[in-house]
Amino acid sequence: MTLPRIILSSGEPAGIGPDLCIEIAGRNWPCELVVAGDMQMLDERARKLGRRIDLRPWHATPEPIAHQAGTLPVLHIPVAAPVRAGQLDPANARYVLSLLDRAIEGCSASEFDALVTAPVHKGVIADTGVPFLGHTEYLAQRTGGHPVMMLATKSLRVALATTHLALKDVSAAITKERLHRVLKVIDHDLRTRFGIASPRILVCGLNPHAGESGHLGREEIEIIAPALEELRARSMQLLGPAPADTAFTAHMLEEADVVLAMYHDQGLPVIKYAGFDSAVNVTLGLPIIRTSVDHGTALPLAGTGKADAGSLVAALELAIAMARNAPHARQPAKR
Amino acid sequence: MTLPRIILSSGEPAGIGPDLCIEIAGRNWPCELVVAGDMQMLDERARKLGRRIDLRPWHATPEPIAHQAGTLPVLHIPVAAPVRAGQLDPANARYVLSLLDRAIEGCSASEFDALVTAPVHKGVIADTGVPFLGHTEYLAQRTGGHPVMMLATKSLRVALATTHLALKDVSAAITKERLHRVLKVIDHDLRTRFGIASPRILVCGLNPHAGESGHLGREEIEIIAPALEELRARSMQLLGPAPADTAFTAHMLEEADVVLAMYHDQGLPVIKYAGFDSAVNVTLGLPIIRTSVDHGTALPLAGTGKADAGSLVAALELAIAMARNAPHARQPAKR
Repeated sequence: MTLPRIILSSGEPAGIGPDLCIEIAGRNWPCELVVAGDMQMLDERARKLGRRIDLRPWHATPEPIAHQAGTLPVLHIPVAAPVRAGQLDPANARYVLSLLDRAIEGCSASEFDALVTAPVHKGVIADTGVPFLGHTEYLAQRTGGHPVMMLATKSLRVALATTHLALKDVSAAITKERLHRVLKVIDHDLRTRFGIASPRILVCGLNPHAGESGHLGREEIEIIAPALEELRARSMQLLGPAPADTAFTAHMLEEADVVLAMYHDQGLPVIKYAGFDSAVNVTLGLPIIRTSVDHGTALPLAGTGKADAGSLVAALELAIAMARNAPHARQPAKR
Repeated sequence: MTLPRIILSSGEPAGIGPDLCIEIAGRNWPCELVVAGDMQMLDERARKLGRRIDLRPWHATPEPIAHQAGTLPVLHIPVAAPVRAGQLDPANARYVLSLLDRAIEGCSASEFDALVTAPVHKGVIADTGVPFLGHTEYLAQRTGGHPVMMLATKSLRVALATTHLALKDVSAAITKERLHRVLKVIDHDLRTRFGIASPRILVCGLNPHAGESGHLGREEIEIIAPALEELRARSMQLLGPAPADTAFTAHMLEEADVVLAMYHDQGLPVIKYAGFDSAVNVTLGLPIIRTSVDHGTALPLAGTGKADAGSLVAALELAIAMARNAPHARQPAKR
């Protein structure tokens, strides 16, 4: 099989993103790895970290070339202002978006098979007046997809029906339409990108004990259960609505390929407890493959050598796996 | 030190409660163990399970006697109708409450040092017309306490600010008064019953990312943070409000003796993932010590020998530990 060609956006230059890119370039990978970022900034960071690494401008080749430990092919995009590790500079906010724009363009054109993102800093982008809710929302805007957030470790996958929403607004957001849309995306993407022929989705209830027959809320009876029934009639394999507190126990998880939580803090505390250092944030529902680290820019650690590359390693591994299960063949790279 | 004397309510007679009591009586314990239940029912269940056990009527002695494996001192309370394992009978609903009433009376009078409860079946009690929301609520009614639910494994403790409440009603229930009451109970009970001199309580926010500076909800700014400030001024050690999704990661948990979740499905999925077979339900805020299994009556398993005593073992171990840390000395048993 052909190797995937993966674009890695190095993210906020003052944060640990560049450090992590340099770190993972230090080993061999069963993919071609292209890092989007400023060549000089990456070179300076490598020196600061005491890493000997062979930075070189990336040039597209007809076939992808497996990554060689110690090399770093860079798709150079220049920063606007010199970078100091740990110190945000609004002058470089636009640069961070340029990395994403270039990566999205490349993935959309099949120049790359997948996008892996290092962390960005929402605050410094928002401060420049660019409306930016987050990576996921930005990607959805640019690519026209219906994003569904999923976190994955090697043994657990948790998707969310709603994401960054005040708790008091969650109930109203759980509609049959939303559940249909989200469940179809999960079902589709687990088939096409995770190689699961018939995905089993364990759907949590909204209320404690999944409403306990209506005593603790009626959304399960009025919305969730009917939505699931309709989709079961279309051959989707859906379990639930299940009480969230027992949905993550071993005998329940054995029956499911993914758990769909109704909201952020119903699902994410469990998966971050289970594997904080190895959880990957995957955006389902986009026309492109995208995985991401599951942590922030960790500014105080930038340039110190103390940043842990575990999540970026896991994100790259998953992107490679997803690219291999992708239904579309990789197109020859553009020249 | 004197041994604790612990009353174990055997719970719903058609469920696995009696099985578990027989199971744990099969080993030695560093406490006197008294099982409240019907002597004949327990004898029949032991035979059904093929367990040789020396059932004997319990008689109070001046000093507690360490439990000897293979014996079962029974505080006999008669069932109203013959019991068939696995088959609920509303005729015995009143019996289940009688077990609790006797146990509460004994604990309140310092005849016993702690109460451990096997599961009851809420439905069959409610069907008889007795208003019964659950063990915890019943205990609070009878003893006049302000109960706070906490689940504990050997490595993690999670308390709840609200419990069995529809999700849409949670926000309105998070008041400064409630938080003060709950936090004072936790602080007090961890000192007096868990031997923690200065308990560190990690308080979750209500909203995703603890509201993200107000962008995802304002309860943290308007209610939770001010409530914590007032209690810090009274020397309580409080962390937070913290994003729930990272509150349960290792480096956060290292800093805390207990995590306070704002609602049921923010905290319980994590602890049940972490230790479903060994989680203990502890009721804080009562004038008596009470621990409980964290599972239901499992009717189909009653009498089969397949019930797992792990949670009851853990509940008894914790009750023993709590009794030893109790500020009050055990009084000589009543005659």
